[in-house]
Amino acid sequence: MSTIWNFSTRAKEVKSSVIREILKITERPDIISFAGGLPAPELFPVEEIKKACIKVLDESGSKALQYSLTMGHLPLRRAIAERISKRDGIKVTEENIVITGGSQQGLDIMGKLFLDSTSTLIIEKPSYLGAIQAFNSYRPTYITVGMDNEGMLLDEMEEDIKKHKPRFIYAVANFQNPSGITMSLKRRKRLVELSKEFYTPIVDDNPYGEIRYQGKDLPSLKSLGGDNVIELGTCSKIISPGLRIGWIVGPADVMLMIEKLKQGIDLHTNTFAQYVVYEYIKTGQLDEHITKIKKAYGERIKVMLEALETYFTKEIKWTKPEGGLFLWVELPQGNSATDILPKAVAQKVAYVPGKPFFVDESGDNTLRLNFSNATPEMIVEGIKRLGKVFKENIK
Amino acid sequence: MSTIWNFSTRAKEVKSSVIREILKITERPDIISFAGGLPAPELFPVEEIKKACIKVLDESGSKALQYSLTMGHLPLRRAIAERISKRDGIKVTEENIVITGGSQQGLDIMGKLFLDSTSTLIIEKPSYLGAIQAFNSYRPTYITVGMDNEGMLLDEMEEDIKKHKPRFIYAVANFQNPSGITMSLKRRKRLVELSKEFYTPIVDDNPYGEIRYQGKDLPSLKSLGGDNVIELGTCSKIISPGLRIGWIVGPADVMLMIEKLKQGIDLHTNTFAQYVVYEYIKTGQLDEHITKIKKAYGERIKVMLEALETYFTKEIKWTKPEGGLFLWVELPQGNSATDILPKAVAQKVAYVPGKPFFVDESGDNTLRLNFSNATPEMIVEGIKRLGKVFKENIK
Repeated sequence: MSTIWNFSTRAKEVKSSVIREILKITERPDIISFAGGLPAPELFPVEEIKKACIKVLDESGSKALQYSLTMGHLPLRRAIAERISKRDGIKVTEENIVITGGSQQGLDIMGKLFLDSTSTLIIEKPSYLGAIQAFNSYRPTYITVGMDNEGMLLDEMEEDIKKHKPRFIYAVANFQNPSGITMSLKRRKRLVELSKEFYTPIVDDNPYGEIRYQGKDLPSLKSLGGDNVIELGTCSKIISPGLRIGWIVGPADVMLMIEKLKQGIDLHTNTFAQYVVYEYIKTGQLDEHITKIKKAYGERIKVMLEALETYFTKEIKWTKPEGGLFLWVELPQGNSATDILPKAVAQKVAYVPGKPFFVDESGDNTLRLNFSNATPEMIVEGIKRLGKVFKENIK
Repeated sequence: MSTIWNFSTRAKEVKSSVIREILKITERPDIISFAGGLPAPELFPVEEIKKACIKVLDESGSKALQYSLTMGHLPLRRAIAERISKRDGIKVTEENIVITGGSQQGLDIMGKLFLDSTSTLIIEKPSYLGAIQAFNSYRPTYITVGMDNEGMLLDEMEEDIKKHKPRFIYAVANFQNPSGITMSLKRRKRLVELSKEFYTPIVDDNPYGEIRYQGKDLPSLKSLGGDNVIELGTCSKIISPGLRIGWIVGPADVMLMIEKLKQGIDLHTNTFAQYVVYEYIKTGQLDEHITKIKKAYGERIKVMLEALETYFTKEIKWTKPEGGLFLWVELPQGNSATDILPKAVAQKVAYVPGKPFFVDESGDNTLRLNFSNATPEMIVEGIKRLGKVFKENIK
């Protein structure tokens, strides 16, 4: 019966995320998966979260289980504002923070806030698949901007902005998903200049900013652009993704608009999870925990880069990220990472083909590798298998 | 700077929920508030939730804190499917269930799934404010249908459906928010007939179905209409709203469409909260807990109805719900519950004016009273104060 219901245009257009579909397959325990974006579960602070749960329920049980305010739990908003103020050396207060159900909800809210079906927005090429999926449901037109090792190419940005009047510019400035590329300081400054000149907001999706393994932190787009920049953050990579706690940082008046939209979206984010995350942050263990994560992932990327040198033939190129969870591989033009994937899965190793990260259907010779979820031993074995698959299958 | 950004049409149109704004004021502890829809916090199963948290983290910590599947935690989906199968005597499986971030997210998803800006939908008059807010962001046209003590008036429904081709019919069949009215069996059957005849889905928003204080449960719209009905459910009124766990029950193929939309919305609902709620349900304490809630709220509504008889003058009318959290008051025509509210707040008692529950700006002589949140003593005192305020202010 339902097949003849009259659905919305967006619902009829929506495609399933290739990544989510692949995650289902690669959950088989015999597969070494570089496909997902999963943090290492053995590093989750399970005992500390348990302590936080007990404390929250003992001390504030009836509040933590009750409805709460749409913008989020005030102490958590303050704690996040403090962290960002400290990082950027600028004044951010709770008025600049809305707590979201992970930063994926932040992306959906950006779409809801800015996009009509007649709107354009600028995104990197490639760009984060989950963002494309969130924005797609508002049916905008994408203007894509290529990337090199310094991030977004800005040569044509001014012209693009003048011509297309984008509602916003979507960037992942730090250790981009999928490419692992970090935007250089020069580009950051220029992007902010253009944003100011043309009153075009930048949305900086920043889930990985705190997990850098080498090199020096660069000033955030937020610190350079102030109220021209909305930043999306999350606990997913530094505490736990299952708790679905993210945040939006932006101008106070825009936060009030978001509050109204979020009332209709879900009333508010999980109260209990907000209390628990705040309790965990309050204990002061977060920075220590991040250090631990950085050490583990820093080792894993090193192992993966070494394995790539050993097992991949020289016509294959890859990026060398200084942080984040992903690196990006380019097979010689004319090869399809999509077509080769089933052969890799047959050899019990998986990756994500790059094509879904491009809104223009290009990039089929690319693929994304995650290095945070598998142990170093599995990484070596997995890259060895993958090297063999590519050797046998690329033209 | 942000004030000159170019926002979406929906964002520029959105109004704040009067209820959420009022909740902020009425959080002052000296006010007796009948305004919110808050369950009684002293009844939350805090110790049981604590036990569930500990068990989940001890036994499945790294899974419960990790990313998980978009449709929800499989054992929880199964448990909910079993509960509904048992209630309705029909076969519902996990394929018919998607877990949502409270049923408010279910409402947003209904909007996303069905509504274009050119769409119409049918809603009751008055209808749930949070649903109106969720649907508004998809910018549909509303066809409103009046209500009497048997629920939605169906005399013009056939004509409305033929003329306006609504994408769906939105109903709160059990103890409606805001009116407290329950749809009679005769009306349920007729509504389902019309739904089947014209292939128009019914969305039955059912947060209160399990909390009936007197009378006998009626067959759910789902049990009568099968795959013609999508039902929204939630733990908010029977366990805890702060955990933000709700669900959508519907045809399996529609659940797959919703899965794709939800990937873009928030990837998935809080994994940990899903594990905890499942753990709590598994212990078999839920039915006992619901009995406890029904006893407490049943007493409170009795106390409120008695107080209304005692303190309200006879030109004021009210409904006598058999369940749920709300009853509905009508002042004589020409009076404005909105205008009288500040006078009530000055006397330290609050309610929600009825007007925002009407999409056509009518209903200003109505108001909603919640009886679940205040203790019986506070209810008597609050209604006494309110009776005085109305006596002094109504024309």
